[in-house]
Amino acid sequence: MTSMENRRVLLNARPIGVPGAEYFTVVSQPVDALKAGEFLVHNQFLSVDPAMRGWVNDTPNYLPPVAVGDVMRAFAVGKIVASNHRDYAVGEVVCGLFGWQRLTISNGDNVMRRVTDEDLSPSLALGILGLNGITAYFGLLDACDPQAGETVVVSTAAGAVGSCVGQIAKLHGCQTLGIAGGRDKVQQCITEFGYDQAIDYKNTGDLQAELGDKCPSGVNIYFDNTCGPISDAVFEHLALGARITVCGTAAIQEWSPLPVGPRVHRQLMVNRARMTGFLVLDYKQRYLEAVKHLADWLRKGQLVAREHVLADMDQAPGALQMLYRGENTGKLLIKVD
Amino acid sequence: MTSMENRRVLLNARPIGVPGAEYFTVVSQPVDALKAGEFLVHNQFLSVDPAMRGWVNDTPNYLPPVAVGDVMRAFAVGKIVASNHRDYAVGEVVCGLFGWQRLTISNGDNVMRRVTDEDLSPSLALGILGLNGITAYFGLLDACDPQAGETVVVSTAAGAVGSCVGQIAKLHGCQTLGIAGGRDKVQQCITEFGYDQAIDYKNTGDLQAELGDKCPSGVNIYFDNTCGPISDAVFEHLALGARITVCGTAAIQEWSPLPVGPRVHRQLMVNRARMTGFLVLDYKQRYLEAVKHLADWLRKGQLVAREHVLADMDQAPGALQMLYRGENTGKLLIKVD
Repeated sequence: MTSMENRRVLLNARPIGVPGAEYFTVVSQPVDALKAGEFLVHNQFLSVDPAMRGWVNDTPNYLPPVAVGDVMRAFAVGKIVASNHRDYAVGEVVCGLFGWQRLTISNGDNVMRRVTDEDLSPSLALGILGLNGITAYFGLLDACDPQAGETVVVSTAAGAVGSCVGQIAKLHGCQTLGIAGGRDKVQQCITEFGYDQAIDYKNTGDLQAELGDKCPSGVNIYFDNTCGPISDAVFEHLALGARITVCGTAAIQEWSPLPVGPRVHRQLMVNRARMTGFLVLDYKQRYLEAVKHLADWLRKGQLVAREHVLADMDQAPGALQMLYRGENTGKLLIKVD
Repeated sequence: MTSMENRRVLLNARPIGVPGAEYFTVVSQPVDALKAGEFLVHNQFLSVDPAMRGWVNDTPNYLPPVAVGDVMRAFAVGKIVASNHRDYAVGEVVCGLFGWQRLTISNGDNVMRRVTDEDLSPSLALGILGLNGITAYFGLLDACDPQAGETVVVSTAAGAVGSCVGQIAKLHGCQTLGIAGGRDKVQQCITEFGYDQAIDYKNTGDLQAELGDKCPSGVNIYFDNTCGPISDAVFEHLALGARITVCGTAAIQEWSPLPVGPRVHRQLMVNRARMTGFLVLDYKQRYLEAVKHLADWLRKGQLVAREHVLADMDQAPGALQMLYRGENTGKLLIKVD
């Protein structure tokens, strides 16, 4: 491939639910010439995130849906290889909403941040030093204010966000319980991410009863990445004054029409609990505060991150289904040559 | 009736849902002799509150269920007519959890507060200067932090709590919309309680559409006294950063098993909204702060309260069903001779 040849993953139809590989086409296109005020990023890693499912569905969201025919919206990290922009120099590493493509022309608007921690892999900027870690940091510390000794339950506990939440909670003196699917992930929760306890929701006879056994004083904080039956079971065990961060809804395939489930009002009222919808984009002004702490913990070995790297962009079209089926064993990334 | 003869409303069986008159028996009993450290209250008004439904159902709650055979738990206000207690003097007016009965022996533990505003009717201590008004005050101001210009929606808008919420919101410069059942109550919302707009949920073709028309910028604050379909419709119109106080669930008859409804997770997440379970008992240390402000507003005519007074204790057994059917036209009270 020549240096100016772009490979791009385009959305080719409007999916309902989690889009399979058939909704994407990988194409090769020459890259446009840079205009004044633009720079060219050669992406090294592309991100695969649960939020991307929402970005392609044609329902109200915090961003407009990706247009059919457009490159798939995604975070990526790469090196600037050409620049007509006074603030961005060749050689700088940046991450941002660069899309599922090899080369991205940017005017700076879609840059999330410069990546300056040269002792750490740039791929981390898409995971634990990117929105996943920042989500875990503010979604736990800012939205839930964890106190030492409190019981913190995390769903998708071995995932890119969840594994970080569990570790940060532990660093703050909490008792942690992870909920994950499958024996390997539960094992990973305990041995790799340091949860005090873990439950395999796919192989428990009665999730609600097991939660009761493992959280005898109730759940003080629930970091919810799933919604659905896992969330329903946790809500049966809320402690007085519980805080719930609603961060993701991985267990729900489709939101139009609204799916039904147990009404949470009385559980919230009886326990004077608080349920807060969380979106990391609201913390833009404070990203670097989180990155600084997360990088420090990483360097000290107090925080670990696992990555699952797909070797080629041809694997991008199937990556979202892989993620929603839970087949990845760490932050899911696509390596780009 | 002699002055020492008590009339009491006893719970005679364990109801499911809202208890009808058949679950209560009115009896006459002599009152016990006062022991040291006790005093006798002659109740003037007994309260009828939505929370009493929860107190008689045998499900987990913030108070143990009323035992079958016991006097029905209820708030009441009355005058001390005999005292062996050094801190409570004959002639003082007190309100507290004195039960549905004429005479109550107390050691002070079940006193909520002394009623010292002698220029105002003691009955107000059970409504707008009691838990209803205090609930409205903290449930709106503390849990939702209303800002001038925000849209505040209130369900059971003409009720004892709701009517006070709407007026306090208006005093804070908010746009208010009340949801109530029936033309009379909607009329009362506008003319008596000063709501900017009101919707009759019993006579609207499409509550969700009407809410959209009347709240074009969305709902910033929702004070929820109902749960159920009204709440579901409001949740479709949450504004960014919306705050919801879950204060009551009048529309739901039975919580065991949990009723189902639309899952709220995605609406909370997309709007970064916060849903908080509220119980006024958590504000015990701050009751007088609310009463002071509410009494000031009442005296200045900035706040109005309406009472619906049943003339005799024989009407107590049917009063909870009357309340849940929405047949009262103000704070529902029972007068005691």
